[in-house]
Amino acid sequence: MSSKIDWIAVDWGTSNLRLWAMDADGEILARGESDLGLNKITDGGFEAVLHGLIADWLPDGITPGRTLPVVVCGMAGARQGWCEAPYARLPAQPATLAAGAVKPALQQAGLDVHILPGLCQIDDPDVMRGEETQLVGFMAAQPDFAGWVCLPGTHSKWARIANGTITGFRTYMSGEVFGVLSQQSILRHSMQGADDAAAFETAIRHVADKPGDFLHCLFGIRAGGLVSPDGGKAGAAMLSGYVIGSEIADIVARLDKGESIALIGDGKLAARYRQALQVHDFDAAIIDAEAATLGGLRRAHAVLTNQ
Amino acid sequence: MSSKIDWIAVDWGTSNLRLWAMDADGEILARGESDLGLNKITDGGFEAVLHGLIADWLPDGITPGRTLPVVVCGMAGARQGWCEAPYARLPAQPATLAAGAVKPALQQAGLDVHILPGLCQIDDPDVMRGEETQLVGFMAAQPDFAGWVCLPGTHSKWARIANGTITGFRTYMSGEVFGVLSQQSILRHSMQGADDAAAFETAIRHVADKPGDFLHCLFGIRAGGLVSPDGGKAGAAMLSGYVIGSEIADIVARLDKGESIALIGDGKLAARYRQALQVHDFDAAIIDAEAATLGGLRRAHAVLTNQ
Repeated sequence: MSSKIDWIAVDWGTSNLRLWAMDADGEILARGESDLGLNKITDGGFEAVLHGLIADWLPDGITPGRTLPVVVCGMAGARQGWCEAPYARLPAQPATLAAGAVKPALQQAGLDVHILPGLCQIDDPDVMRGEETQLVGFMAAQPDFAGWVCLPGTHSKWARIANGTITGFRTYMSGEVFGVLSQQSILRHSMQGADDAAAFETAIRHVADKPGDFLHCLFGIRAGGLVSPDGGKAGAAMLSGYVIGSEIADIVARLDKGESIALIGDGKLAARYRQALQVHDFDAAIIDAEAATLGGLRRAHAVLTNQ
Repeated sequence: MSSKIDWIAVDWGTSNLRLWAMDADGEILARGESDLGLNKITDGGFEAVLHGLIADWLPDGITPGRTLPVVVCGMAGARQGWCEAPYARLPAQPATLAAGAVKPALQQAGLDVHILPGLCQIDDPDVMRGEETQLVGFMAAQPDFAGWVCLPGTHSKWARIANGTITGFRTYMSGEVFGVLSQQSILRHSMQGADDAAAFETAIRHVADKPGDFLHCLFGIRAGGLVSPDGGKAGAAMLSGYVIGSEIADIVARLDKGESIALIGDGKLAARYRQALQVHDFDAAIIDAEAATLGGLRRAHAVLTNQ
C-alpha cells in the first residue's frame, strides 16, 4: 500500500485522534484511530505518536528523497497542544484558514506536518478548533449553501455561512450541561425514558414559549416524579428537550429569510436535533461527520500543496 | 435549665439538623446542631439521635408523668425520612400545614413528636420540605405581606403569599446548576473574580434581555478568556450573574402591581440576590433564616398544643 500513499489526514482531538492514509486523488486508502488525544500526551510526544500510528502503513519507511505531507486539524493546534496555530478570525474562508497553518519543529526527517488553526470570534467571544475544518468540508460539498450549520456535541456549534464564507458562530454548552445535570445533580435520580419522543417535544415547545423558565423546568423534572404517579417517567427525554430546545429556539429566532439549516453529525444526537428543528417546522439535512472532516482536510491539503 | 424547657424545635434536613430548647414563652433556652442529617441515618435511628442530642438539656431526664412536645420540620418527613408526612396542597395556611403533622411510633416514653408536612403543587409540579415552615414564620412576623418571598439556595424557592396564604411557588435549580458547572464542567478553569460586581450586573442585564441565550452565555465565559487578555477575569461573577439573573428575570416578569419581594436567608447569597433585584429596580428586605424557621415552628407548636 505504501507506494500509493500521497499524504496523511489527521483529526487530533482532546480525547482521541483519527487519521487517514490518502492517495493522490484524495481517496482513502486506510483509516486509523487511537485514544492518544491531547490530554494523554505529555512532553511533546506528538511526533512519536504519529510515527507509531502510520508505521503500519509504511512498512518500508518513507521513500528517501521525498517528504510525506501530513495535514492536522483539531486540538493539536491549541496552546497546550503540539504547536500552537493561533486562531484565525472572522470572516473566514477555506483558503485563509489553510494559510494560518503552522509547521511544528520535527525530530525526524520524512514528514511535512501542517497544523491548521482554529477560529475565534472577538465580539460575542467564541472559539472552535476542528469544527472549522468540518465546515470547510461542508462548503466544498455545498458551495451555494446559505444559512446555519450545526455540529451538535458537548459544546454544540452553530456557524453562519454565506458565499463560501463563515461569517459568525455560536457555541452552546448543551451537551455538557446535559451531562453534568444527568450525572452529578439531583436529576440523576430521574433519568428514565430517554426515548419518549412526546415528552421530548413537549419540553421543546415549553422552553420555546418560555425561555426564561429554564432553571425552573429543570427542577420540575424531579418534582414531577414526586407529586404524581405518572410524573417523571420520561425525565431523560424532558431534560434533553429543555436543553436542546433552549439552543434550538435561540437559533431559530436568528434565522433570516431564505436561510437553510444543516446538521453535521452521526446517529442519535443528530436525529434528535433534527426532531427538535421539526417541532419548529424546520428541516435539516444530516451530513456525515467523517466526510465533512475529510473534505476539509482535503481542501486544506490542496491549498497547502498548491494543487 | 431543664426545669424551664417546655418544648423542642427541630429543623431536620438532608445533610444536617438544628434544634432549639424552647421555654413556655417561645424564647430560646439553648441551641444545638449536628451533621446527622437524613442521608446519614439508617435503620430508623432518628429517635435515638434525637434523644442523644437533647440529653445534655435534660440532665435529670424528662419529668415523669409528662411528655415533652417536639416539633420537627424538614426532610425528616420525607418518604425516606423518619415518618412520611404527606405533602400538603395549595393554597396553604399555617393552621392547615400544622394539621398535616404526623406522629411517628416511638420506642421510648417521654416525647410527643410531631413531624410537619412539606408542600406540593400539582399543576406546574413542584415540592418543598422545610421552606414552608420558614414561610409560616415569615407570615407570622409580617401578616399583611403580599408578594413573593425567596429562599435562595441549592434549590431556590419563590413563594407567592397573599392574605396569610401560600398560593403558589416555583423552585429554580440555580444553586445546584452553579455548583455542578463551576466544579464539574469546563467552566471550572474560569472561576476567578467571584466578587466582581460590575461583571455580575452585566450578566444579570444580558440574560434579562436575552433569556434564550443562556447556554451560549455559559460557553462565552470560557471563550472570553481565550480570545482576549482581559476576558474571563470575572468568570465566577459572570456564571453567578447568568444563573441568578435567569431566575430573577423570570420572577420579576411574574410580579403583579403592588406586590413586594422579601428574601429569607443569610449573608452573601441573600445579598447577591438583593443586588440582582436592584438591577431590575426592585428592592427586598432580608429576613434572618433562623428567625423564620423558629417562627414557623413556634406557630406550629401553638396549633398542635391548642395554644
